[in-house]
Amino acid sequence: MVELIVKKRKGLELNKKELTSIIDGFISGEIPDYQISAFLMAVYFKGMNSTETAILTDLMMRSGELIDLSQIEGIKVDKHSTGGVGDKTTLVLAPLVAAAGVPVAKMSGRGLGHTGGTLDKMESIKGLSVDMSREEFIENVKKHNIAVCGQNANLVPADKKLYALRDVTGTVNNMSLIASSIMSKKLACGADAIVLDLKVGYGAFMKTLEDAEELAKVMINIGEKMNRNVIAVITSMSEPLGYTIGNALEVKEAIDTLKGKGPKDLTDLCLELGGHMLVLGNVSKNHEEAVEKLKTLISSGKAFDKFKEFVKAQGGDVNSVENTDQLPSTKYSRTYKSEHQGYISELNALDVGLASVKLGAGRETKTSNIDFGAGIVLKKKIGDFVNKGDSLAELFSNDEGSFEKANELMTLAYKFADKKPLANPLILKTVR
Amino acid sequence: MVELIVKKRKGLELNKKELTSIIDGFISGEIPDYQISAFLMAVYFKGMNSTETAILTDLMMRSGELIDLSQIEGIKVDKHSTGGVGDKTTLVLAPLVAAAGVPVAKMSGRGLGHTGGTLDKMESIKGLSVDMSREEFIENVKKHNIAVCGQNANLVPADKKLYALRDVTGTVNNMSLIASSIMSKKLACGADAIVLDLKVGYGAFMKTLEDAEELAKVMINIGEKMNRNVIAVITSMSEPLGYTIGNALEVKEAIDTLKGKGPKDLTDLCLELGGHMLVLGNVSKNHEEAVEKLKTLISSGKAFDKFKEFVKAQGGDVNSVENTDQLPSTKYSRTYKSEHQGYISELNALDVGLASVKLGAGRETKTSNIDFGAGIVLKKKIGDFVNKGDSLAELFSNDEGSFEKANELMTLAYKFADKKPLANPLILKTVR
Repeated sequence: MVELIVKKRKGLELNKKELTSIIDGFISGEIPDYQISAFLMAVYFKGMNSTETAILTDLMMRSGELIDLSQIEGIKVDKHSTGGVGDKTTLVLAPLVAAAGVPVAKMSGRGLGHTGGTLDKMESIKGLSVDMSREEFIENVKKHNIAVCGQNANLVPADKKLYALRDVTGTVNNMSLIASSIMSKKLACGADAIVLDLKVGYGAFMKTLEDAEELAKVMINIGEKMNRNVIAVITSMSEPLGYTIGNALEVKEAIDTLKGKGPKDLTDLCLELGGHMLVLGNVSKNHEEAVEKLKTLISSGKAFDKFKEFVKAQGGDVNSVENTDQLPSTKYSRTYKSEHQGYISELNALDVGLASVKLGAGRETKTSNIDFGAGIVLKKKIGDFVNKGDSLAELFSNDEGSFEKANELMTLAYKFADKKPLANPLILKTVR
Repeated sequence: MVELIVKKRKGLELNKKELTSIIDGFISGEIPDYQISAFLMAVYFKGMNSTETAILTDLMMRSGELIDLSQIEGIKVDKHSTGGVGDKTTLVLAPLVAAAGVPVAKMSGRGLGHTGGTLDKMESIKGLSVDMSREEFIENVKKHNIAVCGQNANLVPADKKLYALRDVTGTVNNMSLIASSIMSKKLACGADAIVLDLKVGYGAFMKTLEDAEELAKVMINIGEKMNRNVIAVITSMSEPLGYTIGNALEVKEAIDTLKGKGPKDLTDLCLELGGHMLVLGNVSKNHEEAVEKLKTLISSGKAFDKFKEFVKAQGGDVNSVENTDQLPSTKYSRTYKSEHQGYISELNALDVGLASVKLGAGRETKTSNIDFGAGIVLKKKIGDFVNKGDSLAELFSNDEGSFEKANELMTLAYKFADKKPLANPLILKTVR
């Protein structure tokens, strides 16, 4: 192992046999963590080429269960987002593209820290379950063209172990390691094609467009080497997506969007990503045609019908999604008012995310409980003009004591300017 | 700790408090090895500046016992060599400079792998002991101006632990880490001033003069920051030093050198290093004068007298150093003959060192036993002309089965040329 560390330290390429011995030895515990972490730091400085990255991805993918979706007809197109505050796109996209004919067999995660998780959001619908056997999962997709479930603990264990080590050794931030981590999970879940939503900006993992483009290329390369079509959409995350942050609040906004009454940024992003999914899924010829189809599904009510069908199939209370007043709510609410006058020039998604966690909408640790009704509804976003005392947001919580901390965080989130800031485009670039 | 790893990964300077928390946490076990190894790899790539390196040295030095030599009058000058095959300079230098009036309170190590250790060499003298209490050690220096003992297990434990981790994580080869490791040990042993012998070349740790110069500067810098005079002599190690490799064989050659009948390279090196030691020890005004003094001590027999006094003081059999035939010898010997005709152009010290280990002269693992009589006496060295069938070396062992392996390694050591190679200077540079 020392030789392999030194080889990478010198910037040399490791072959399949060498990478296999590293990953196998790491999983089995034969290679101690202190050698792996030194190796990871060498990778941080010297990188991995596309061949090495694809081999690493393949090794990680095969370290655990591989979901076999071959019983489901059609091209299974998965979507992955690098995470954002208020990002409820999966809640919209899954029923929307399912309604268009793309089979959606989606395995999702839970929220941790300032970003929420699709599973938590879905569970805010009374009765809805994301626990099902592989057979039920596949049966549901075959019957309804859609199912969303939790990720098995045995899915890509190598990535779980490696990420835990990277997290505590300052070696998270390397393109090959990030890309192989994401791609190994998507591929283990059985995706035939993948649409990536790479967030850039304040509060996102990638700070610059260049970084995001590089990551996109690394992931597309992995896809090529593993015979999977991958398209990456680079999108801006300078502020939260849509107006709501918090589980039931986001479900409401997703429903609005499925009904054609959602906020522009969320709607645009869902049409952009969904359009690529339809093309990759061989349901539409091109992106333009695909977007038109999605718009029709929304306006005709078929998208929302599919959502209800999906909720019902997973045991959820359809009544509460028809009458969203019946979704979980909170005992207390507070209006967060502006102390300044001017145009909102910054609305830091990270701070807003952390404020929502304080209110109970997220998990501070893996074992924290979530308050489904808690969260934030923004009243104004970047570019809006506000007067002193105007309502900037409504905060919701069942814990009265949480508002003070949440208020403090909200105060950090905003910056104001005398001049209206230039509009920031949401979709920055498509890489394929 | 993650923050500190990332800080170093970014190439930023760590302050005293930060480095203290790393080393303290490492020794106490609060910081796990996998974080330290990632940190070490970041240091490998980003380096440490002279302030950081001095702080690290000081922290390591203070991690264990500090030898207090203040009871001994005079400037205690220590010597350190980065290790070589056949390097018996300490056996010559210690009594030589002691005879000149520089107090020698020397703590030495044992051999491992292809390089021998002073303690093992000394113990090949019947009865001689290197185990003594701190009081006896200091008493001996006060009485005889010389004592050599083993390093306490509690000397610089941080370095032991750190080196063990560097060794298995590909992070040995960094100037700051190498320099702080060596200097912390010398300083913990109570040295007021230090002469360094940095070997360069084939089989040495440093491959180029530039690397050795850089290491010299880092170590001199540490000395400056810690108020110690340090002089570094960069010497060539293209072939073994002198003609003998193996414990009793090297004692014999050291005795010859102390009597003025030693090989030129060993004699020159001892005079060069010893000269600096006398100047640093304030016994001579300049190097030239110091070398003359050392030569006189040799020719007058005073240097060898001091050696005998030292051997006797530590319980050794003086008779066997007066009649070196009585030193340990072996049952078997073999002549290693040349299969080529021409000038010897290479004589790889590493291969010769490994051959001597096979014969029993060294340790393959820390717990191996040493055969004091075993080893190699070279008959020819680089630049010598040999005919096919000429004796190149005499091999000595008590294990008849070991000659075959040793022969194979010896064969690897030699290269021959038709033209006489240019003479390679032994002393390449002095850095102060």
